[in-house]
Amino acid sequence: MTTKNFPQRYFLPEEEQPKSWLNIRAFMKNKPAPMLHPGTKQPITAADLEPVFCKACIGQELDETTEFIPIPDGILEFYRAYRPAPLIRAYFLEKALGTPAEIYYKHEGTNTSGSHKLNSAAAQAFYAKQDGLTGLTTETGAGQWGSAMAMACAFYGLDLTVYMVKVSAEQKPYRKALIETYGAELIPSPSSTTECGKKILEKDPNTSGSLGCAISEAIEKAVHTPKCRYVLGSVLNHVLLHQSIIGLECKIAFDKYGIKPDIIIGCAGGGSNLGGLIAPFAAEKLQGKSDARLIAVEPSSCPSLTEGKFDYDFGDTAQTTPLIKMYTLGCDFIPSSSHVGGLRYHGMNSTISQLYHDKILEARTAKQTEVFEAAVKFAKIEGILPAPESSHAIKIAIDEAMECKRSGEKKTILFGLTGTGYFDMSAYMQYNDKSMKD
Amino acid sequence: MTTKNFPQRYFLPEEEQPKSWLNIRAFMKNKPAPMLHPGTKQPITAADLEPVFCKACIGQELDETTEFIPIPDGILEFYRAYRPAPLIRAYFLEKALGTPAEIYYKHEGTNTSGSHKLNSAAAQAFYAKQDGLTGLTTETGAGQWGSAMAMACAFYGLDLTVYMVKVSAEQKPYRKALIETYGAELIPSPSSTTECGKKILEKDPNTSGSLGCAISEAIEKAVHTPKCRYVLGSVLNHVLLHQSIIGLECKIAFDKYGIKPDIIIGCAGGGSNLGGLIAPFAAEKLQGKSDARLIAVEPSSCPSLTEGKFDYDFGDTAQTTPLIKMYTLGCDFIPSSSHVGGLRYHGMNSTISQLYHDKILEARTAKQTEVFEAAVKFAKIEGILPAPESSHAIKIAIDEAMECKRSGEKKTILFGLTGTGYFDMSAYMQYNDKSMKD
Repeated sequence: MTTKNFPQRYFLPEEEQPKSWLNIRAFMKNKPAPMLHPGTKQPITAADLEPVFCKACIGQELDETTEFIPIPDGILEFYRAYRPAPLIRAYFLEKALGTPAEIYYKHEGTNTSGSHKLNSAAAQAFYAKQDGLTGLTTETGAGQWGSAMAMACAFYGLDLTVYMVKVSAEQKPYRKALIETYGAELIPSPSSTTECGKKILEKDPNTSGSLGCAISEAIEKAVHTPKCRYVLGSVLNHVLLHQSIIGLECKIAFDKYGIKPDIIIGCAGGGSNLGGLIAPFAAEKLQGKSDARLIAVEPSSCPSLTEGKFDYDFGDTAQTTPLIKMYTLGCDFIPSSSHVGGLRYHGMNSTISQLYHDKILEARTAKQTEVFEAAVKFAKIEGILPAPESSHAIKIAIDEAMECKRSGEKKTILFGLTGTGYFDMSAYMQYNDKSMKD
Repeated sequence: MTTKNFPQRYFLPEEEQPKSWLNIRAFMKNKPAPMLHPGTKQPITAADLEPVFCKACIGQELDETTEFIPIPDGILEFYRAYRPAPLIRAYFLEKALGTPAEIYYKHEGTNTSGSHKLNSAAAQAFYAKQDGLTGLTTETGAGQWGSAMAMACAFYGLDLTVYMVKVSAEQKPYRKALIETYGAELIPSPSSTTECGKKILEKDPNTSGSLGCAISEAIEKAVHTPKCRYVLGSVLNHVLLHQSIIGLECKIAFDKYGIKPDIIIGCAGGGSNLGGLIAPFAAEKLQGKSDARLIAVEPSSCPSLTEGKFDYDFGDTAQTTPLIKMYTLGCDFIPSSSHVGGLRYHGMNSTISQLYHDKILEARTAKQTEVFEAAVKFAKIEGILPAPESSHAIKIAIDEAMECKRSGEKKTILFGLTGTGYFDMSAYMQYNDKSMKD
């Protein structure tokens, strides 16, 4: 096949954009194990989740059989405001590496929130509005998810309270400003607005906060506010479903040009970007129609797939969520604070975990300094400053392309560029002044 | 004509992208007055400029007759790495305003430097490489131009020294980090690396610096470094030429859909974005083929067109540049430091000045707080956080759309969204905490 005519930046025309999401679980013989109620240890029901989540999201969370779920018009409308995300042929990088491999990447960072998170934020805000809710709560660590939710809530006309880990709110004033510009209330966590926040502050008034604590505050606030629910930006299966738009756009474009990727690479924290990117390719593989390699890349500091245990565990450090069967480092695992980015989650989405367990998916780790070395190289050659998270995928994509150079094989590589690093320059400052550690 | 089918975000396919720049001066009966040598007061010659600028740029600066100048392949190659910039139909904004007007905007902020500046940075770096140079110097105030030059020099393999106004380097650590990540040397100005910097530091060791001083340092450094020249990001006519890619992409897309804009609006500091956006539309107007209104928007704090004098003046505060016939507030004019953004220049490009003098172009002013009010409204409705500079155009575009609502006229409005505000959130922080003044 010839792929010479693939433009450097391909944008799917509006009329060809996907109208449905793809539910990977419907293609799996071995379904992910059900979530269990933390009290009864019985499979969770829709009724269990209703005080916390929106109805449509609960339905999607529990749906293991519908292959394609139509995207409501009200969500497609918002998607048109920032999608399609370009599918880019890395001609410059290929040339610089001298590799026979063809490298493509899907750039999800062209919206103001700076990452793929907006794909699920839009859906969750839309469904909240549909349920007649007036407000939402959430937490944010690195800030991408909080920014995305603030944008989506501004668009659909919902109040939003974002509990931002206190140290992040202090270290990332630009993220805080962005979230507030979109009209959300930003509360550094722990705070005195919740009982659990107060308790933590009593114990340690100078605590810098944690994601676990911010989650607990956001859930408490949602449960105690009328017409309000809680939203989460990763880990859950309905989030993966919304993110399938990433892979579907790639698949449609590739099919038009007769391109079949041999290797598909995504970074993995909670698993939402990876699950979205691989969705249609994993479905083909599960149907025996493809033998493409699917690779998850984790930071070596937080290796849940590669070094974790495949078992039931809590989704949060405070042990309040349902139990999820997943690869986990233990819900009390906290990676070294010298490590940056949105990949610091102790566990992994249950579908991704099952695919890894069944060897549909491989996993690799990358060290922080080599990730930033790849990031800066990529920025200079391709002209896009990547998010630290995305740079894990870049690092492994370069490794695979160099392996092709050694072997002479002309493989086709696709990786997910989940976002840009524009609001998160402090990590680059560390790298530039050589104070970054592995 | 029907424009119902215009997609929300239109990307010009690669094969339809412009292959030439448009030189507005070739279409003008009244050419802009020539630049004068500051010593002899005679029209400047190519030889006068050669110690400072690259050869091709000098040729373009002095060329008043060639209508279309081919873009070299080596520049088109880099353009493909971040162009086309989307032309967006503001369906959401139209609906929110309830206006019969059709509103379009050209989004030049989708590249990592965050603005249109990269269009000229790419050209100037390419020509420097072609001249056999090894290094360039420049200055940057707000940081957009410095970021763009750092990216272009990384791509073409040139050393770059950026003199950044000291107070900006301190207030915008993320801009500094971005420029350094792309491998440029960033020197807060004034510095001890130049004679003029030393003199200023002797007088006032605690000075916060100024753009005039940074320009002087960059020129001195270029002139005293072998195989090195100086590059400037606005004001000059070769910069406007490179920026004509903005308007040309709009024109090609509009022609495909049978759209004729009635009003074209751009913010104006030195004039490069405005000149680029209006280029093909001004050419039509100068040929009597169109009566579209062309509107420059200035900050009320720096109203060079609307309140300046049309006369010869220096381009810099240090009075070292050639004399330029332009609308100017006087080369010693310094707008209040409470005002933000890249529109603080005392003068205006000579072509823009002549077009305004000849009433081809209108000019309007906008106050800072009303500009940010428009910016935040736009961000919430359209989902893109605009640069403070671009928001001047947004403010007037909204005014014109509301005028259509009053009159019932269905006009077609195009404005230039020159960039995003991602690296420049401090202004939004001021607006959010209500400490911003007019």
